[in-house]
Amino acid sequence: MSLAPVLDRIDADLGAATERLMTLLRIPSISTDPAYAADVDRAAEWLAKDLASMGLEAAKHPTTGHPMVVGRGGSGDRHLLFYGHYDVQPVDPLDLWNRDPFDPAIEETPKGRVIRGRGSSDDKGQLMTFVEACRAWIAVHGALPCKLTLFFEGEEESGSPSLVPYLEAQKDALKADLALICDTGLFDSRVPAITTMLRGLLGEEIIITGPDMDLHSGMYGGAAMNPIRVLSRIIASLHDDTGRITVPGFYDGIPEPSDEVKAQWEALGFDEAAFLGDVGLSRLAGEQGRTALEMLWSRPTCEVNGIVGGYTGAGFKTVLPSKASAKISFRLVAGQDPLKLRESFRAMVQKMLPPDCTVEFKGHGASPASVMSTEDPAFEAARQALSDEWPDPAAFIGSGGSIPVAGYFKTILEMDSMLIGFGKDDDAIHSPNEKYDVESFHKGIRSWARVLDALAKTDAP
Amino acid sequence: MSLAPVLDRIDADLGAATERLMTLLRIPSISTDPAYAADVDRAAEWLAKDLASMGLEAAKHPTTGHPMVVGRGGSGDRHLLFYGHYDVQPVDPLDLWNRDPFDPAIEETPKGRVIRGRGSSDDKGQLMTFVEACRAWIAVHGALPCKLTLFFEGEEESGSPSLVPYLEAQKDALKADLALICDTGLFDSRVPAITTMLRGLLGEEIIITGPDMDLHSGMYGGAAMNPIRVLSRIIASLHDDTGRITVPGFYDGIPEPSDEVKAQWEALGFDEAAFLGDVGLSRLAGEQGRTALEMLWSRPTCEVNGIVGGYTGAGFKTVLPSKASAKISFRLVAGQDPLKLRESFRAMVQKMLPPDCTVEFKGHGASPASVMSTEDPAFEAARQALSDEWPDPAAFIGSGGSIPVAGYFKTILEMDSMLIGFGKDDDAIHSPNEKYDVESFHKGIRSWARVLDALAKTDAP
Repeated sequence: MSLAPVLDRIDADLGAATERLMTLLRIPSISTDPAYAADVDRAAEWLAKDLASMGLEAAKHPTTGHPMVVGRGGSGDRHLLFYGHYDVQPVDPLDLWNRDPFDPAIEETPKGRVIRGRGSSDDKGQLMTFVEACRAWIAVHGALPCKLTLFFEGEEESGSPSLVPYLEAQKDALKADLALICDTGLFDSRVPAITTMLRGLLGEEIIITGPDMDLHSGMYGGAAMNPIRVLSRIIASLHDDTGRITVPGFYDGIPEPSDEVKAQWEALGFDEAAFLGDVGLSRLAGEQGRTALEMLWSRPTCEVNGIVGGYTGAGFKTVLPSKASAKISFRLVAGQDPLKLRESFRAMVQKMLPPDCTVEFKGHGASPASVMSTEDPAFEAARQALSDEWPDPAAFIGSGGSIPVAGYFKTILEMDSMLIGFGKDDDAIHSPNEKYDVESFHKGIRSWARVLDALAKTDAP
Repeated sequence: MSLAPVLDRIDADLGAATERLMTLLRIPSISTDPAYAADVDRAAEWLAKDLASMGLEAAKHPTTGHPMVVGRGGSGDRHLLFYGHYDVQPVDPLDLWNRDPFDPAIEETPKGRVIRGRGSSDDKGQLMTFVEACRAWIAVHGALPCKLTLFFEGEEESGSPSLVPYLEAQKDALKADLALICDTGLFDSRVPAITTMLRGLLGEEIIITGPDMDLHSGMYGGAAMNPIRVLSRIIASLHDDTGRITVPGFYDGIPEPSDEVKAQWEALGFDEAAFLGDVGLSRLAGEQGRTALEMLWSRPTCEVNGIVGGYTGAGFKTVLPSKASAKISFRLVAGQDPLKLRESFRAMVQKMLPPDCTVEFKGHGASPASVMSTEDPAFEAARQALSDEWPDPAAFIGSGGSIPVAGYFKTILEMDSMLIGFGKDDDAIHSPNEKYDVESFHKGIRSWARVLDALAKTDAP
């Protein structure tokens, strides 16, 4: 089965492929907010039908949360599992969007044409690059180039509560030679990337209670404990003056990247000034003495993702609130045990509580970092296939983000993951006005057609 | 004109008086939220009509904000100005209310009958104690016992932006011998009080901006500045470990209460354990080495009344937000200049900003503390009148709250204020389930009838 007509077919079908993506983008599948549960289900239904329409055996599988979609097709010795997620992030603050996040459109921008809308890049657009590559293979050759399982999750943006139980229950049905995951980015617009280092993620919500009701700050101010002050002290203490995180044992067991890896990163010529300048910043705010790529790929972090307490509406209210809460996340690297660090963080917070204050903890996911072995010749074959599509050769890189599923594939399905994606730094994922370049979508589909061809011809381990 | 039939009339009319208050409580006159502007106006209209129905000359006066209501009546050498406010606090968190805050009702509680609803205590119920006392005087004697101006504001809960311009423009129309203000509390349920020390209030909102858009914490976390962290550090630094406020110059010029005043306060036998225990606390959280009454009456405070930034909805979102903001208020005491402290606070915040962060400040009111001179024989006369109504003799006390209008009456109208009110500590003003005891309302009306009688018989200064 030759590749060239598949690539031609992809070029000819791009308009129709874009329309299919727009249909999926119109479904507001926000997984973290229970109000959108029916929409999440509708997105799963749409995907299962789309896979079935290509002749794949496809089904929507219920879980205690949002459903999983599984499709199967192709044959041969090589068996690949593809993973993507069809749920999306919330859209607030809605007033910063220039259009309805769920009424997507193609827009002309100074940097080229983009598909604008929530999920266009993370991860519906990326997921559909693979689906469209499969569709082109089947349209041209009547078959996929190898045996494939497609596996789509609807809870990635809400901590994946059903994923581990599902993988454990469906071990035999999902196990393949290698997983392909499309939820990462290009290194830059010329250099495609295979991500081989992923940070883990520990999510914690802390709710501090002081007085058992909201008080008038004139009546009680100055005498009663204010939970916002307590919470602020805790947050302020999480980093020292050099940007290091103060949770006891936080850095224990973290390896330094080898000199060789550091040299590779150096060679990428990452433009720190542009990376910061794109978002209105001029200085790195992390650990002193580290480069930006180290801060993003090989060093752990602690960020406050949200905080709220007291009166936050228009005007002023002299209340002394009963409660204040914050959502805090830690990006973890190789060597860090998420559950051990959760204990250490919680103990640290407990210790900082003044008398009369209590704290409630809610865990939101705890996944370790993943580091792939690039010894498998499939990695070099895929790197070559990507290099054929893009202007410059593909690179092995790290990622600041967390894709916990890669860790679960390793521990539960005993399968490595190859992370290839076409997102760009300015895609504004998780932010207002998310977009996906039409070029990312088009060359992404072509890239997967090439990678499938290359992996089908590479011996399974 | 004798007092006894006026008191009898008040007792007989209590049911109708309560109904009138309920009608006013049903109007959601939340002044801080522009969505309720028409309701605020409706409350003013209702009051002007109620005063007119008693035969007073009454009018609603427009301002650039919410209207002022002014009523006039009576004659004689003694001229008193009564002040109250008809606007109320917002009602959130609404889910903590046991009934619609604007559908008031009489409820039986273990401590007696209460009028439940937003504004029942602060300040519609208190304001109506005076109106009902006037109504009873007129009903019995066909006239008020002295010359009266009634002055009602609709912006007290939103920083009174129109008050100073209005007082300056209407100086001649509003100037009287003495102001009466009903917006304070009893010392306890047996001991009525005349409040002679009031704290001032400085309200500040700070909005910190880091990156110029919300970022993905995986993409930028660890490298980019997080404004929630910056805000938390600022808040955490506002107090030192002994509970003292660190704004430069904050305590300059504050006098210590005299030994005599301290002895008076000591004699009141304030129950700190009960004061804290009522709201689920066990320890004073303010400046070390100070009593609760000092913390509340003669020492300044700094409280965070609200904080918000990033994702605060259900679930989790790994965003690194662009902005975070807090509403911070300072209760001020004698000797503190609000405008000077505003400058000092803003300079301190500016100094703590890391590179790449900016701050926007919004001022929400700045009023100095007030200390009344109790040399005027009217104070002793009123104290005696109150002592006649309540089980125990009345006390001169301080107040932790801020009633800026008393300061403006002094500086603009050159008139002292006598603060008499019937609120209780458990009224939950500014909180869910606000109430006013039926006893506060009933004996409050009777108290004003007595005080008017006493002051009409006391020579004006």
